[in-house]
Amino acid sequence: MRAAVNGNKGLFITLEGGDGAGKTTQINNIERFFEEKGLVVLRSREPGGTSISEKLRQILLDRENGSMEAVTEMLIYAAARAQLVRELIVPALDEGKIVICDRFVDSSIAYQAYGRGLGSIVREVNETATGGLRPDITFWMDIDPQAGRTRASKAGELDRLELEAMDFHYRVYEGYKRIAQSEADRVKRIDASLPIEDIRAEIYSYLEELCEAKGL
Amino acid sequence: MRAAVNGNKGLFITLEGGDGAGKTTQINNIERFFEEKGLVVLRSREPGGTSISEKLRQILLDRENGSMEAVTEMLIYAAARAQLVRELIVPALDEGKIVICDRFVDSSIAYQAYGRGLGSIVREVNETATGGLRPDITFWMDIDPQAGRTRASKAGELDRLELEAMDFHYRVYEGYKRIAQSEADRVKRIDASLPIEDIRAEIYSYLEELCEAKGL
Repeated sequence: MRAAVNGNKGLFITLEGGDGAGKTTQINNIERFFEEKGLVVLRSREPGGTSISEKLRQILLDRENGSMEAVTEMLIYAAARAQLVRELIVPALDEGKIVICDRFVDSSIAYQAYGRGLGSIVREVNETATGGLRPDITFWMDIDPQAGRTRASKAGELDRLELEAMDFHYRVYEGYKRIAQSEADRVKRIDASLPIEDIRAEIYSYLEELCEAKGL
Repeated sequence: MRAAVNGNKGLFITLEGGDGAGKTTQINNIERFFEEKGLVVLRSREPGGTSISEKLRQILLDRENGSMEAVTEMLIYAAARAQLVRELIVPALDEGKIVICDRFVDSSIAYQAYGRGLGSIVREVNETATGGLRPDITFWMDIDPQAGRTRASKAGELDRLELEAMDFHYRVYEGYKRIAQSEADRVKRIDASLPIEDIRAEIYSYLEELCEAKGL
């Protein structure tokens, strides 16, 4: 396994935040940023990204599995992540690629530890799942849960997780806020209510800084 | 959740051991033992036993998933178990039923901690998965790995796990031996090379003892 914190090759970038926060648009922007520098970009999403992880994703998002226990859900997310990290992310970083991932461990902390109330065990299990790998930078797309839900429901049918009651989504939001406070060096809060172009500019300025620090 | 050790209602019985050790035959015998006492028996198997756990089982045993990482595998087993414990086993025990399960946490210790070399994290993750639930009694069907493999391969096609090299199966065997030594009160070693009828008699005598202790 790779060292705990991402070392001298490649860059590992994650996007976090509730549904409807505009993650996909900004992932497209981030991809363009690096491609214009001539760097190879690998995009992935969680849960999913590998053949095994996508099968686990189907189980997680299937509305039929409404009887799923919180601990079961947490362990399936961790399993999908363990496979994604080892099969895809670490090899790509070792080759010097830029890896952009839609959601990572912070999602499990926010949704399972805070949203479901599972507490500190979520971080411990995920340390095992990721072998301690951490993103170089994480953009938290901060949007009010109610506003995010309205945007997401306009975009199409809601899956099993999106159907949760609003108090669940407010606990998730609280989780993200605490992560952003306690890991301010890594996690950059982005006001997702701003115009898309302003958000792009803010993210690009963080990325320029990161590239300079990494000599890219 | 139920208290850590199975309390005053129901009985939780597990069978362990490599493939080809004759677990199914003895599960049939154990079921008959309790049904003759007029008790309600629930049989289950691992991984599986619930709709969600059976979907996870398919992923685990599918030969196509040969790229599965050891940590991924361990977490999927734990997820399937978490669902089985909460959806099926604990409610049945609370109703005073006899639950007989083909494999449980000891399998993960033997196969993942010893066989795959994942070590102590396997026990920790499984404490979370089971909420600390332990069987009242476990029968370890002790058979030499080579002999078990020969028996299992005669019975039909081998799945992804059964296809592992023999040194893997010897490490698993070593795991079972250590569990049986360190938890001798719970885990009863059964010589699986004995005639089926002798094994039945030995298991029945353990069960009579257990019923007496439990007032069943």
